[in-house]
Amino acid sequence: MNLELAKKPMAGKKPMVSKTQESRAPLRLTRVVIENVRPEVDCGQFAIKRVVGEQVEVTADIHADGHDVVFAVLRYRSPSQAEWQEIKMESLVNDSWKAAFPVSEQGRYLYTVTAWTDRFASWHRDLGKKFSAGQDIALDILVGKDLITQAAGRASGPDAKRLLSWAEELAMSGEKEPRLGVEAAENPELIQLMQSHADRSNASTYPRELAVTVDREKARFSAWYEIFPRSCGPNGGVHGTFRDCESKLPYIAEMGFDVLYLPPIHPIGVTNRKGKNNSEVCSKDDVGSPWAIGSHEGGHDAIHPQLGTLADFKRLRSKAEQLGLEMALDLAFQCTPDHPYVKEHKNWFRVLPDGSVQYAENPPKKYQDIYPLDFETQSVNELFEELKRVTLYWIEQGIRIFRVDNPHTKPYQFWEWLIAEIKSQYPDVLFLSEAFTRPKVMYRLAKLGFTQSYTYFAWRNTKYELTEYFTELTRTPVREYFRPNLWPNTPDILTEFLQFGERPAFMIRFVLAATLGASYGIYGPAFELCENRALRAGSEEYLDSEKYQLRQWNTADARSLKDLIARVNRIRKENLALQSDWSLQFHPNDNEQLLVYSKTSPDFSSVIVVVVNLDRYYTQSGWVDLRLDALGLDPAQPYQMHDLLDDSRYLWHGAHNYVKLDPHTMPAHIFRVRRRVRTERDFDYFL
Amino acid sequence: MNLELAKKPMAGKKPMVSKTQESRAPLRLTRVVIENVRPEVDCGQFAIKRVVGEQVEVTADIHADGHDVVFAVLRYRSPSQAEWQEIKMESLVNDSWKAAFPVSEQGRYLYTVTAWTDRFASWHRDLGKKFSAGQDIALDILVGKDLITQAAGRASGPDAKRLLSWAEELAMSGEKEPRLGVEAAENPELIQLMQSHADRSNASTYPRELAVTVDREKARFSAWYEIFPRSCGPNGGVHGTFRDCESKLPYIAEMGFDVLYLPPIHPIGVTNRKGKNNSEVCSKDDVGSPWAIGSHEGGHDAIHPQLGTLADFKRLRSKAEQLGLEMALDLAFQCTPDHPYVKEHKNWFRVLPDGSVQYAENPPKKYQDIYPLDFETQSVNELFEELKRVTLYWIEQGIRIFRVDNPHTKPYQFWEWLIAEIKSQYPDVLFLSEAFTRPKVMYRLAKLGFTQSYTYFAWRNTKYELTEYFTELTRTPVREYFRPNLWPNTPDILTEFLQFGERPAFMIRFVLAATLGASYGIYGPAFELCENRALRAGSEEYLDSEKYQLRQWNTADARSLKDLIARVNRIRKENLALQSDWSLQFHPNDNEQLLVYSKTSPDFSSVIVVVVNLDRYYTQSGWVDLRLDALGLDPAQPYQMHDLLDDSRYLWHGAHNYVKLDPHTMPAHIFRVRRRVRTERDFDYFL
Repeated sequence: MNLELAKKPMAGKKPMVSKTQESRAPLRLTRVVIENVRPEVDCGQFAIKRVVGEQVEVTADIHADGHDVVFAVLRYRSPSQAEWQEIKMESLVNDSWKAAFPVSEQGRYLYTVTAWTDRFASWHRDLGKKFSAGQDIALDILVGKDLITQAAGRASGPDAKRLLSWAEELAMSGEKEPRLGVEAAENPELIQLMQSHADRSNASTYPRELAVTVDREKARFSAWYEIFPRSCGPNGGVHGTFRDCESKLPYIAEMGFDVLYLPPIHPIGVTNRKGKNNSEVCSKDDVGSPWAIGSHEGGHDAIHPQLGTLADFKRLRSKAEQLGLEMALDLAFQCTPDHPYVKEHKNWFRVLPDGSVQYAENPPKKYQDIYPLDFETQSVNELFEELKRVTLYWIEQGIRIFRVDNPHTKPYQFWEWLIAEIKSQYPDVLFLSEAFTRPKVMYRLAKLGFTQSYTYFAWRNTKYELTEYFTELTRTPVREYFRPNLWPNTPDILTEFLQFGERPAFMIRFVLAATLGASYGIYGPAFELCENRALRAGSEEYLDSEKYQLRQWNTADARSLKDLIARVNRIRKENLALQSDWSLQFHPNDNEQLLVYSKTSPDFSSVIVVVVNLDRYYTQSGWVDLRLDALGLDPAQPYQMHDLLDDSRYLWHGAHNYVKLDPHTMPAHIFRVRRRVRTERDFDYFL
Repeated sequence: MNLELAKKPMAGKKPMVSKTQESRAPLRLTRVVIENVRPEVDCGQFAIKRVVGEQVEVTADIHADGHDVVFAVLRYRSPSQAEWQEIKMESLVNDSWKAAFPVSEQGRYLYTVTAWTDRFASWHRDLGKKFSAGQDIALDILVGKDLITQAAGRASGPDAKRLLSWAEELAMSGEKEPRLGVEAAENPELIQLMQSHADRSNASTYPRELAVTVDREKARFSAWYEIFPRSCGPNGGVHGTFRDCESKLPYIAEMGFDVLYLPPIHPIGVTNRKGKNNSEVCSKDDVGSPWAIGSHEGGHDAIHPQLGTLADFKRLRSKAEQLGLEMALDLAFQCTPDHPYVKEHKNWFRVLPDGSVQYAENPPKKYQDIYPLDFETQSVNELFEELKRVTLYWIEQGIRIFRVDNPHTKPYQFWEWLIAEIKSQYPDVLFLSEAFTRPKVMYRLAKLGFTQSYTYFAWRNTKYELTEYFTELTRTPVREYFRPNLWPNTPDILTEFLQFGERPAFMIRFVLAATLGASYGIYGPAFELCENRALRAGSEEYLDSEKYQLRQWNTADARSLKDLIARVNRIRKENLALQSDWSLQFHPNDNEQLLVYSKTSPDFSSVIVVVVNLDRYYTQSGWVDLRLDALGLDPAQPYQMHDLLDDSRYLWHGAHNYVKLDPHTMPAHIFRVRRRVRTERDFDYFL
């Protein structure tokens, strides 16, 4: 007798007959199907992401053959507990079920679903129907007594005793009078006891345990500021130090940022060093690119001497922290020809038949100042471990945020391993993926563990583009693993929109970044000073880029956006709605140059509506059609739109309302919606 | 040194370090990610479905870190071969890849995807770029020589020799002149050899092997006719036999059906037998319901004596087959109180505290003539095996199609096991699921193995309903596992549309069933004779239903639809487009009562456009907007619409065309589209 299913190739499928049973022992019949458990990323291969304090809402399709009552529980386990917790799932429509569990600590949670048909509950339901129809229920009472007695056998201690006495109670009441039997069966204590000791012998459990990576709140809500410390010197032409950088901290903190990201701080190579504006010719004074890492002064665990000492670095980190600025470092795993690895671990690079090391190239372009690490080396284990050691080294210096340079040029397998290794020890470490590459590659990196990711935001300018892209990021399963971090500029990206837009363009892109994204960042002071000179037409490189030279910035310039930035960052902190992305909702309007969107807190206590004029040249106006239900607004009541940018207040009513924005004054409204407007009914004598 | 990923809960995930390797041996680095392989049902838990002669088109998202050239192959294995075959996949846009494999035999195929980065192909691509840019390629030629020499090491025999000589050839040519080196590298033989002996050491294979159930063609394309043999007697009131039934076969075959489905043919219970019109009172003459199976004369493997003997049954089967009618039997796994199982296997039923057997009920309704099998019995193994034995018994009598009664009232696990068991021995057996229940339950039964499924077609009447439902069935992943079989009526279902519509209603529903569905069926002769009397208002039961009594049908009645049915079945056979469902496309028009849709063969050699007037009372007309691209039509050329129902021909041009249908004449057009219309250019002197 072969009761096993025909061999199937899929992983994880359990045979129908448990291996611990003899082949003639009864197979364990399951009655309930559990499918389509959501969220689930790639069949459970990857974890979803949450931050501490959030809920994980889980839905599943659950159904059984026949008409028996189905019970389902959501099971979950926190990182610190061995025990699984259970939460009863609620049946919605169309065989869909739902429950949610809270995540209160950083680390890796697991969840899955268990369900069974409950004979007692089915009996209980049918008993009432039969009694109401005036049918004889004497035999049913005996069936119920049996079911309760069996439950007593599964229970122990006081519960077992109570159940046995309930079994008797039911039988006696039922014998006395059917109505009394039905009343006994409906006693809440009995029902509770029967649920606690349910017969789960036919229970099904979803075949996969799904994971949640729970991070601290900054993973979801953060404002980044990128700065080149070497440009912080007191005068132009003098290489700035960490000490110099300290004096800039109040300026950055006053703008309201909370992450201070430094490009690589390691010794910079000399061989084939690039000159100003990425020139192949390099003068003696040229400082080189911070991403060209490694010299005789050290590699990835060393500090560029011109910036200062490790002690200086730690002092800067500590000063920044006192001002609410957490420091983020760059993980740029590549080497110059002068990097100590080249001598000590030539086997980590690709060696050519003439004994030379392969430099980076994208034929016909050559990058002779960079040797890429060769992950196909036979010494791949050593290489993995060394890069982990480097990461841990900076963690030991107090760093908990890494911006990872070009992760898409190193194997996925490496990142999946590294991030899991680090986060199992330090669940508070955050990794930002700087992968400006194809969409599926970016998503894969996010799936395998990156906490946040750079996006295509910089190149999404029109209403259609922004609506499509941000709907994909915030309203599809992508949001379970991909946390966008929006940058209007970076040292590599001065977009054409900014190049030709002057100050209004920077204001537009800033408001979009800071309100479309709970996490965003700017590369400053270039950004707030509206630096828009490109290397040449058609290029997105900055002219006189800080990547290759020192720059002196006049942060006191009157055209600076620092006040706007400070105001918007304050708005972000004061309005819960702007601290997450999932509620993002676009609202229709009749002008292609006006973008209208909202964010809300789950309970609508915080409701923000943003209107942006995407046209950096002309005043635009139009009629908005707000989706009032998405804002928790009553179509019959007026409401107040309080523009938090200029403190003006508008009284609106219903969906259809007028807006007008002059980009040369302020290209955006950031409205806080106040649902309660005072009326005559607020006077005492109306009460 | 721990290079394993942090423990993950998901099934089937391979550790990064193979267990056969020492922990210090190099880990096997994979470079390529393979994700989103489609089709795939529930993470590979279930097989997709195809019929012999079709293709399985497989897509996947495939990408690697960096810029190396990626190669991918679709791997598949047929039921009769141990060896895996490989087909090179083609890269489309956005990291999507595609390939297809043919399925030529019944049974279970497997498929998966393997991909790797190819150093030789990358080298080859870069060599050309560098040479074109006038760069020195001497060192590159040496790298290429090494790669070819390594490939020779992986090859053997003549290939190894050829590769070694190519390595020399490349080096010598390159030394002579770079251009000659590049030419050598581009030699097709070398490229072919290098592909055959590619270095797959970093290859990734998709973690799941996915399955295809390949059936014979009837699984996709079939026309069913359901008839009660006991009504085939020569006179009213006399119980018909299999012999009587033989005389009806030519009538059924002439209408063009190919499956003859008989309700259960087993002995009918006497205890609590239902009388005419489902009456609780049963007279001595009442014949009972064929679905009330089992009496002292036998159970599921016996034949109702009033129908004849096993020999009669086999003779009927054989006669039917000669006329192109394959016989389908009913698997209705339930018993009357008189079934032999009740005495011999009381433990297969639920026994109540008073020793009686639990009858079927849906409180407060009681079905005392039916004892459901209790799959939660301790003897579940025996029960499974017995039901398999019954199924095999009828297979041995030559039956290869089963219509399964109410599968949703027996455990999913049972059906998954039974169907797998049967099909592993008899891959030509087809199972039709009669589950009129909730959508996810119906889909699950299809996933777990049912070949075809009844649908909600009977209750989809309006343009919106039909468009939505058939788009879901034919244009979403549902189609990979759910094969619809459309029934406008069954002995249980006389829809309100038919009750109140007279003959035009039956014509409308017939044309819809036979053209929306490659598989469909009718319960006759009730259907073709337009029987529309319901038991009572609001009920879908037939008055004087054949489920409970004999009926005499006058199949010669002039109002019969038999000629229309014969014509439509002939059209189905002559037009490939109507023999499958996946090409179904709805076309807009301006009248809510007109439904316009098309089906095409993959190469557009067969193109059918159907127009149905959904209004059974009034003539409707309107303007159609054909989607010409879906029909392979040139918007600049006229085309002929040949109505295969009345042989009329219309000359159309472009998308916008007029139609008008009187339901009392003919409520539908079934157009064959002829793209080529003769013009003056067909005369000799134009050539």
